Amino acid sequence: MITSPDNQHLKTIRGLREKKVRSRTGLFAVEGEDLVAAAEAAGITAEIVLRGGVDVEQTLLDRASLLGSGTRVIGVYRQHWASPGGAAVTVYLENVGDPGNLGTIIRTAHALCDGPVVLGPGCADPYSPKAVRASMGSIFARPPARAALGDLSATKVCLDGSAELDLRAVGVSPPLVICLGGERSGLGPEALALADRTARITMAGDGPESLNVAAAAAIALHELGNRMAGDG
Amino acid sequence: MITSPDNQHLKTIRGLREKKVRSRTGLFAVEGEDLVAAAEAAGITAEIVLRGGVDVEQTLLDRASLLGSGTRVIGVYRQHWASPGGAAVTVYLENVGDPGNLGTIIRTAHALCDGPVVLGPGCADPYSPKAVRASMGSIFARPPARAALGDLSATKVCLDGSAELDLRAVGVSPPLVICLGGERSGLGPEALALADRTARITMAGDGPESLNVAAAAAIALHELGNRMAGDG
Repeated sequence: MITSPDNQHLKTIRGLREKKVRSRTGLFAVEGEDLVAAAEAAGITAEIVLRGGVDVEQTLLDRASLLGSGTRVIGVYRQHWASPGGAAVTVYLENVGDPGNLGTIIRTAHALCDGPVVLGPGCADPYSPKAVRASMGSIFARPPARAALGDLSATKVCLDGSAELDLRAVGVSPPLVICLGGERSGLGPEALALADRTARITMAGDGPESLNVAAAAAIALHELGNRMAGDG
Repeated sequence: MITSPDNQHLKTIRGLREKKVRSRTGLFAVEGEDLVAAAEAAGITAEIVLRGGVDVEQTLLDRASLLGSGTRVIGVYRQHWASPGGAAVTVYLENVGDPGNLGTIIRTAHALCDGPVVLGPGCADPYSPKAVRASMGSIFARPPARAALGDLSATKVCLDGSAELDLRAVGVSPPLVICLGGERSGLGPEALALADRTARITMAGDGPESLNVAAAAAIALHELGNRMAGDG
């Protein structure tokens, strides 16, 4: 049982709050029994697992926790990165800087399509604590990929609020990549220049300027992914 | 220019972080020029507006701010509550305890349907700082309502992961209320007993247990709202 806050495992866990440490080590930490169980279900072996009252004093584990309520377990895992390609439907993101939105999109893609979420420039770290929590464990079952849009061999459907075509009028056949940009900057001109189709989600005339990017991704995956699966 | 942290307006703003103070006063505070502009655009008059360097010393305003980066303006407004009814499509929520999800759903409903978000039991305070920020100003243009599901005169479509019917097979005509429950507890048995239709969003067999509730709301609003509008 660990009884010292200077224990190396606890130091590692605290260090992994910082992106530069996650990048250097290729590791990340998760808190809570649900996420540790999600790793096990995906066949991912932990590098470190500390259970409060078993492997480490509960008060020391709570001090290493980012959750206000403390936690019963913290696990450390090696980051996995998928290689895009081979999937019928993939999501590509640019400038999605909010880790909560990024994690939610990873969860939604796990539910609604067969490909990974591919991260282009300007995205949050999907292995940050907030992104991992928002993924609700889907980060283990469906690790993200990193690639340039131009390197993806698939029909590129870019969502753009100013497009003339409504998403529901887009004809699609696999392989397909659904491209979304962050809410402030959207997709860059390079991505839009690569688009095979550019489409909008039609909103009420007196509505807001844009949708939340995770809401837009869910709509696009449901609309295109399921339609293409032939059951819509 | 306010130069004392004991100024009554600054005290009011700090107090409005707490739900009990918001409930007692019927007020709420917003930070940032985008949200203050959204209130103006919706024709809502502020009770208090404090601009840094104009109405109050910038350092005092920053200390009243909940944003790590400080803020240029804080506005205080009276809470508005809509009465449900008269709309073609309304969203009804139960047990949506995460204020970020709640605010996102208010924004999505503003974009995709004509009715307010109706709050049943167990929901977060839509006038909490996190919910207001996530609404991106839609809280002003489309204030939420509070009602029991049984009091809504509309066809009730309840989303339930265990339903046999896929959402896309639901025949709909207005007025319609789309009902969603929080991710952990879902809709309660009373709500499900009132359902005219119960439907699921079909997910991959190897996918996560559920979708984020704001993602599910976006999908349902796009699927049912737009189809009903006759342009799908």
